[in-house]
Amino acid sequence: MSDKSWRDNVRQVVPYIAGEQPEGENIIKLNTNENPYPPSPAVAKILREMDTDCFRLYPNMDAAPLVKALSQEYNQPEEKFFVGVGSDDVLANAFLTFFNSNLPVLFPDITYSFYPVWADLFRIPYETVLVDENFAICAKDYERKNGGVIFPNPNAPTALFTSVEQVEKIIQSNKDVVVIVDEAYIDFGGTSVIGLTEKYDNLLVVQTFSKSRSMAGMRIGFAVGNPQLIQAMKDVKFSINSYTMNQTAILAGVEAVKDREYFEGTCQKLIQTREWTKEKLTQLGFIYPQSMANFIFASHKKKSAKEIFTYLKEKGIYVRYWDKPRIDNYLRITIGTQEQMNKVFSALEQYLI
Amino acid sequence: MSDKSWRDNVRQVVPYIAGEQPEGENIIKLNTNENPYPPSPAVAKILREMDTDCFRLYPNMDAAPLVKALSQEYNQPEEKFFVGVGSDDVLANAFLTFFNSNLPVLFPDITYSFYPVWADLFRIPYETVLVDENFAICAKDYERKNGGVIFPNPNAPTALFTSVEQVEKIIQSNKDVVVIVDEAYIDFGGTSVIGLTEKYDNLLVVQTFSKSRSMAGMRIGFAVGNPQLIQAMKDVKFSINSYTMNQTAILAGVEAVKDREYFEGTCQKLIQTREWTKEKLTQLGFIYPQSMANFIFASHKKKSAKEIFTYLKEKGIYVRYWDKPRIDNYLRITIGTQEQMNKVFSALEQYLI
Repeated sequence: MSDKSWRDNVRQVVPYIAGEQPEGENIIKLNTNENPYPPSPAVAKILREMDTDCFRLYPNMDAAPLVKALSQEYNQPEEKFFVGVGSDDVLANAFLTFFNSNLPVLFPDITYSFYPVWADLFRIPYETVLVDENFAICAKDYERKNGGVIFPNPNAPTALFTSVEQVEKIIQSNKDVVVIVDEAYIDFGGTSVIGLTEKYDNLLVVQTFSKSRSMAGMRIGFAVGNPQLIQAMKDVKFSINSYTMNQTAILAGVEAVKDREYFEGTCQKLIQTREWTKEKLTQLGFIYPQSMANFIFASHKKKSAKEIFTYLKEKGIYVRYWDKPRIDNYLRITIGTQEQMNKVFSALEQYLI
Repeated sequence: MSDKSWRDNVRQVVPYIAGEQPEGENIIKLNTNENPYPPSPAVAKILREMDTDCFRLYPNMDAAPLVKALSQEYNQPEEKFFVGVGSDDVLANAFLTFFNSNLPVLFPDITYSFYPVWADLFRIPYETVLVDENFAICAKDYERKNGGVIFPNPNAPTALFTSVEQVEKIIQSNKDVVVIVDEAYIDFGGTSVIGLTEKYDNLLVVQTFSKSRSMAGMRIGFAVGNPQLIQAMKDVKFSINSYTMNQTAILAGVEAVKDREYFEGTCQKLIQTREWTKEKLTQLGFIYPQSMANFIFASHKKKSAKEIFTYLKEKGIYVRYWDKPRIDNYLRITIGTQEQMNKVFSALEQYLI
């Protein structure tokens, strides 16, 4: 018998480890940057009224109704939009489509943990660029030969916003490659560079419905860029799996985009709670980069992050902690409702004062 | 200025061309193998009753409720199931996970058009194996060195079912690689080899909700195989995009699986219409391989397929035609409702008699 095995040809990967998904009545879950508020009531309405008989048909391949709604909301032509199954799907597709150079793709050393995983998966060479001692992304560090650039703005897990001027500098000094700005958390006080896609044909801006639109459970993400970039992504995507956005995601997405008033209201509520949280954290002896996201990356002057993490978990409060170089004394705390944050601070005060 | 461009690094692909998706009142759409019957009424019910507030949370990464329902329905342990965004997602993931040999992957020359596209995308070498003059897949042709085997059963677009004995022979002679049996159309009269996954650890069986369960619009597919195969697929999948099945797909999928009576009823109705269609086709001078799917691959003894295709299209009846070697005189006709098929034959009789 042959000693060869199908096991020899199985792809070896380091699986992504997501934040814990604890379930229970009294859990306060601030570890996966989900929005504490439900999606627009228009989403519930469209689900109730949906014609499920048409589920027998394939969905629209281009998710045309959603692209149309996005086009109207962001005041950009429809051919500048690509939608996918969450921004992870959009980003992975962008890696596959645009990062085919022998030169390394650049991204910050402290950033979204999926970037190196996608690069490995698609055999894309990459180098990480150190953020500075204050966790800042500095444009001048991206002035070197590369096969593409990607970074989140605000960055994760630092929550730090890179100014539009710095972002534009990075785009300008990398016109011969595609620069991807991953704006997953942009709606919590940052300024989007979607407008710059009119000026730079090498800029791809990616956003998600998972955070500011309270739709993590529906998996909707999108990219905005010049029509040539978008067409290239569509060509690759349609060659893998033509139909990915299901009918409910397309229609629920449309409703979420259209209800701007609700969207702005929940973002404002969240920003208010975040600013209040910052003050409370300072009072308790925490330091943190200025957050423009729906989370805060905080370190305590005296108690170790790991100890606080363990204490909070015992109290049923889940935040995120990574035992990794440079960030192993930080906690990433998602902003919940004001009521949830009150409970967090009751627990922290008991422990720290 | 540099003459390098981001365009140099864009991945070049041949985009998949899907069947036309015409819209209109009086169109009879028999070109994409969709089910003419709506999904189970239980699907409509769960959509209406769904708690949309929880859309703010990420879906269950393992689609656990759906895996549980499938496990109960197919009487196999939960750890033998992998679910994805349609069987295309499941199959592409399986290519990526299992086909990493330098030897070519084998599949029939006449088969599902996505196989060579995925192979090219992931840089997997492949060779096609000729089906015989009656379009049959013959086990002995797969007794050669290879990096894996995949074929649909029934095959597409021929609709021909390969016997369980032949399938088992292919698995037996290829124990050192993964053999994927793509059973997208199995519920229309074929016999699944899911049971053989208990005997062969190199067998992966893939099925979809898009055909027999009338859920093309919801994008649900699944694989059954030994737990080691399934874990390898999960590791790769979670490293690309941890959350892909949205909350509605998971819950609607559960309801569709549970309603076995409805499922069997619509399959039976469709099979009856198919058998009636076969008789009518014979009467009109068509020949076709014995279909065990929800479509028939038919050729007329006198009129060319292309002419009939064009004629039917003018009448608002869409069937599928490929201008490709060996199959350019065949039409793939999806089985619609009995009423739709009556109209198709009225039109054909006008033309052919």
